[in-house]
Amino acid sequence: MSEPAFRCGMEAVLDLVGGKWKLLILYHLRGDTHRFSELRRLVGSVSEKMLSQQLKEMATDGLVRRIDFKTVPPHVEYELTALGLDLCGAMKAICDWGSRNMDEIVSINRARNIRLVAEAA
Amino acid sequence: MSEPAFRCGMEAVLDLVGGKWKLLILYHLRGDTHRFSELRRLVGSVSEKMLSQQLKEMATDGLVRRIDFKTVPPHVEYELTALGLDLCGAMKAICDWGSRNMDEIVSINRARNIRLVAEAA
Repeated sequence: MSEPAFRCGMEAVLDLVGGKWKLLILYHLRGDTHRFSELRRLVGSVSEKMLSQQLKEMATDGLVRRIDFKTVPPHVEYELTALGLDLCGAMKAICDWGSRNMDEIVSINRARNIRLVAEAA
Repeated sequence: MSEPAFRCGMEAVLDLVGGKWKLLILYHLRGDTHRFSELRRLVGSVSEKMLSQQLKEMATDGLVRRIDFKTVPPHVEYELTALGLDLCGAMKAICDWGSRNMDEIVSINRARNIRLVAEAA
């Protein structure tokens, strides 16, 4: 089997947490453990099936830990592993950038939606 | 039209540069302008059509500038705008994290591929 080769750190990070949800899931687990239902509310607009699949992949990849309290009814929480927590720390600058540039990103998003509606008409 | 609402900076950033390619394109434009063919080689494994579409979206969103030298044969280069450059700066910590954890991410990727092959068998 040939070795996966990443050209740069960014490519490696995107292999690990690329896609629409994983960076957001990491972000929402940064400060505390969460139950599945809490996480779903925090992430927002993610389907139950998709969130479940993403958490499973992240647990297998060693970013997230699933804690089963073995109770009836079941009580399961998710928390970051040391690796997940470390990645979360590295994400701080980019999250802060998003917060700082929120107004501009909202404007860009609005202009994009207006264009898409016009193109579809 | 309802206002787009982002719950956090990360969600806003992912709206702007989510998906498989845009963060990588930003990364490869961080230090210098590039021609389309150079960028395609740097990003790697992206199709011509996809790269062209991503650059167009990034130009419309104000992250990238297309410079047409108006020559025959055509000579076009791409560079980051101030916004793109600023975002690139905020990405540094996460790129560095990927470089620092490259060996571990390669191991995780390898284990994932072995699992996928086993599941498909």
